[in-house]
Order: sequence, then C-alpha cells, then structure tokens
Amino acid sequence: MGRWEPGARERLQLAALELFIEDGFEATTVAEIARRAELTERTFYRHFSDKREVIFDGQDLLVDAFVAGVVAAPEDASPRDLAEAAVAASGSFFTDERRPWSRRRQAAIDSDTGLRERESLKMGVLARALTAALRDRGVGDPTAELASDAAISVFRVSFAQWIAADETRSIGDIQVALFAAQRALA
Amino acid sequence: MGRWEPGARERLQLAALELFIEDGFEATTVAEIARRAELTERTFYRHFSDKREVIFDGQDLLVDAFVAGVVAAPEDASPRDLAEAAVAASGSFFTDERRPWSRRRQAAIDSDTGLRERESLKMGVLARALTAALRDRGVGDPTAELASDAAISVFRVSFAQWIAADETRSIGDIQVALFAAQRALA
Repeated sequence: MGRWEPGARERLQLAALELFIEDGFEATTVAEIARRAELTERTFYRHFSDKREVIFDGQDLLVDAFVAGVVAAPEDASPRDLAEAAVAASGSFFTDERRPWSRRRQAAIDSDTGLRERESLKMGVLARALTAALRDRGVGDPTAELASDAAISVFRVSFAQWIAADETRSIGDIQVALFAAQRALA
Repeated sequence: MGRWEPGARERLQLAALELFIEDGFEATTVAEIARRAELTERTFYRHFSDKREVIFDGQDLLVDAFVAGVVAAPEDASPRDLAEAAVAASGSFFTDERRPWSRRRQAAIDSDTGLRERESLKMGVLARALTAALRDRGVGDPTAELASDAAISVFRVSFAQWIAADETRSIGDIQVALFAAQRALA
C-alpha cells in the first residue's frame, strides 16, 4: 500500500461515521475504522490524530470562512451586515453534495454525549473568533458580541434545518429566511 | 459539631472558591475545603455531592427562573416580550450583595478549562429549557430558537458586564440597555 492513497481520507471518514453510528463512538477503535476502509492504521494516523478528529477536522476551516466573510465585506457594512456576511461565507462548505455526509456526521454526534458537548464547545470557539473579527472591523462592545451571537444563532439553526430529512432548500436560502425572522423578532 | 450548622453552606462555598483561585480547581480537595471552612467533610457532603457542585449548584434555580418568567408573562406577549421576561426574571438572583461572590466564582471558572467548558454547556442547557418554554407558550419554530438564543446572548453579556471591576449598574439596567442594543442591531 503506497504512502499516498487517493481518496483515503474520505474513505476513512465514511468508515468511521458508519462505525460510530452502528457501534457507538466510544466502542469504535481506529483499527476497526482502518479495516472498514480497507486501509492501515498507519494511513489513518497520517490523516487524523485520533478518531475524534474525523468528526471535527473541519472546525478550523469553518472559523476561517466566517472570519474571511467579515474581512471581505464592504467598507460601509453595518455590524449586522458583517454578521450576515460571516454566515453567508460559510455556505460554500455546505453544498448539496455534502448534505448526506453532514446528516450522518450529525447522527454520529447526536448518539454520543461527549461528541455533543464537543460540538457545543465548537460553537463557542466560532462565536469568539467572530466577535474578534467584528472588533477588528471597528465594531464596539457590546454590539460585537451581540452581533456574533446573532450570527451563530442563525448558523446553528440553519444547519439543523438544512440536514432535516425532507429539506431541499440550499443552506444559503435557509439562512436568508432565518435572518429575516430574526429581524422580525426585534 | 451538630448535624445542622448555621451558614455552613455559605462558609463551604466561600472556602472552596478561595482555594480554587489560590491552588486551582483540580488541586483542591474536599478535605481542604472543609478544613478552611472549619467544618467536617461529612458536613460538606451533606450540602454538595462533589467540589464541582459548589460552583454549579445554582443551575437548576436559574433554569426555573427563566421558565417562570415565560410562564408568568401576559397573554398577549410577543416572542421577544417572552424572551425579555425570561431574562428579567433571573435578575432576582444577581443582587448587589451577590456581586462579590459572582466575581469570585467567575474567577474560579476562568482559571480552569474544565469549569469553563462546564459553564459553556450550562448555557446550552438554559437555551434548550427556554426554547421549550417558548414553544409551550405557542411560539413556533424557528422563532422559538432564535428568541431563546437572543435571550441567552443578552443574559451572558449582561452577566459579564455586571461582574466587571468598575460596574455599578444593576444587572436589570444592563439587560435593558443590551436588549435595546440588540433591537438596534436588527
């Protein structure tokens, strides 16, 4: 087996998710994941530091996308425009091709208390990074925190709607509707 | 030492916070907490199941206060009115007498990763309880989740402002200002 295996990362991720859902996250071993993917444990560890990282490897990219959305927004953008730009910038991650994967990933997370807690803490990391990006764009406190929380709220709810069983709208369309509902609330 | 010790609970809490801040949460033992409070370990365990509970024993009362605020709101309250009522109802916890205690408690939490994570997860529990209370008052989705998140956002930021070094406003006054800032954002 060569050092570089095309598609290895994706095969490992799919195998891991299947096993997490079938047997539970705690009970699944890296050896089993590698076997299911028809790869070696060594290949697994070339791609991931541990089995938890299979689930959470997109975290940094998501944070970067949020921050990039804020940085790229027009000069005259209001705090709310910046928050909406951050969420919109993350839409490129959640394409229709990715939806089945995201659903399985969420099923794996929902089935394990530790993973649910990790996912919840991840949202906190995202919120703090976004707050910092808003401050860098000159948004003062407490508006930066309130705008960041508003963005994370829409992001979280939009993701849950997007992976719901019968949902066919794009995540971008869902987010537009949610931002409108959030404004209506005020 | 009698079975019932007046002020024992408060003495144990103060002693625990002092030790958490001085020595760190992990390094502090229940025996040390009891000794500092001039009480026995047995008395400690009559009041708390473990040292973590000294920090988080108010969680259920806070959730109850939020929910009670929603339940007691007028018949014609809007989703936003309900969210604001929930936050306002929690104000009775955070009296001026309690502010020094809350500051020390937060310092203890800030000094320990595990406690910070626990505090963050606590906010998730509060958000879910509030969302459920809003649904019980007939608020549909996704408005219930968005309104709940908006309330938690104001609560979280208001608490941080309230315990800031030079802050003299009541938490209720801070919350009114934050809800106004949140509406202005929209």
